Amino acid sequence: MSTASPSPAKSAPEPKSPPGPGARRGRPGYDRDSLLEVAVGVFNERGYDGTGMEELARRLGISKSAIYHHVSGKDELLELAVNRALDALFAVLDEERARPGDATSRLERTVRRSVDVLAAELPYVTLLLRVRGNSDVEQRALDRRRDFDHRVAALVAEAAAEGGVRDDIDPGLISRLLFGTVNSLAEWYRPSGALPASAVSAALTAILFDGLRGPRRTGT
Amino acid sequence: MSTASPSPAKSAPEPKSPPGPGARRGRPGYDRDSLLEVAVGVFNERGYDGTGMEELARRLGISKSAIYHHVSGKDELLELAVNRALDALFAVLDEERARPGDATSRLERTVRRSVDVLAAELPYVTLLLRVRGNSDVEQRALDRRRDFDHRVAALVAEAAAEGGVRDDIDPGLISRLLFGTVNSLAEWYRPSGALPASAVSAALTAILFDGLRGPRRTGT
Repeated sequence: MSTASPSPAKSAPEPKSPPGPGARRGRPGYDRDSLLEVAVGVFNERGYDGTGMEELARRLGISKSAIYHHVSGKDELLELAVNRALDALFAVLDEERARPGDATSRLERTVRRSVDVLAAELPYVTLLLRVRGNSDVEQRALDRRRDFDHRVAALVAEAAAEGGVRDDIDPGLISRLLFGTVNSLAEWYRPSGALPASAVSAALTAILFDGLRGPRRTGT
Repeated sequence: MSTASPSPAKSAPEPKSPPGPGARRGRPGYDRDSLLEVAVGVFNERGYDGTGMEELARRLGISKSAIYHHVSGKDELLELAVNRALDALFAVLDEERARPGDATSRLERTVRRSVDVLAAELPYVTLLLRVRGNSDVEQRALDRRRDFDHRVAALVAEAAAEGGVRDDIDPGLISRLLFGTVNSLAEWYRPSGALPASAVSAALTAILFDGLRGPRRTGT
């Protein structure tokens, strides 16, 4: 169900140089995906509310009307960006729900694969995590995040019922702590750094899921 | 070493009504702490960069010159706010370092007490976590955060050396994951809600520290 394009991880882009004089006749040097990529970088750097269409046009090196050739405005760019992140996260949840096997394994894979999504779609997830609900687009994004949280909490409850996750902590709280840890990666993880995303997701799931199984029978 | 005032937890404040006509002669109805409290609420709501002195004065219900009676400007308000959060966090680290006993217990108490600080000083910690380094004040705050992270990583390494924390994951990564989880609470935890901070810190430390001890010898 993901409508996200399959393009690889992207760090916050540098301002592009203006498209060459060859870029004419309705093709202003960007397609919608590459325009979105630059716009999201600018939003993350300056804040969505603090970025005007003038500034966006300047950073893209094109005119405002060239931007309007692709999208109706800033709001549509935000909606495309946050839905790219959300679609990828919901795709993980849907795929893991459809798999056979125990809920605990499906929960663990959901968390691990959400880290992969965060790393692969970092600028889009970062923007999503900063949304505060200041417009209809932002409210819809928050609604989808809440829906995601509820579905993860239901999976945690299922895992607790089968004995794979400790039942002394509320599933909703476990779900918040799990995805709090995942989302906190956006604050410091950079795909261009020395640490591969797979090492981060392996460490994160090892600690959290060993901890979710409950205390060791032999004390420390 | 904490210079933070001992006032209790405060949620984001509502705009205050202007001080009554009795507030005259250099006492504009606020002391520095209560002025800071309102200012931090406005910064968290509208963004620090997006809040001007005009808006701040309007929300405080006093004149700009009455604000300057207390502080030199917006920058000093930011510095007071982030240092209040940082001083409280460093006080925990210093106190736990000075305690006798094993590093693992001191690390666990450091994490647990940092959740307490986050809950008690939520608006100040929230503002701190949004600092991106856009000014000297912000750079100094980031430097102190980095110093804090390094000292936590050293404590994790000590705990791993004594066998209380798994040694198959880098101490720096463990430290980031621990405080990533703690800091993520600022996104959703509200002291006014039904969940006491003690329940959150108990759940968080139970999951993370059971997980940090490593896998159970008996599988699930």
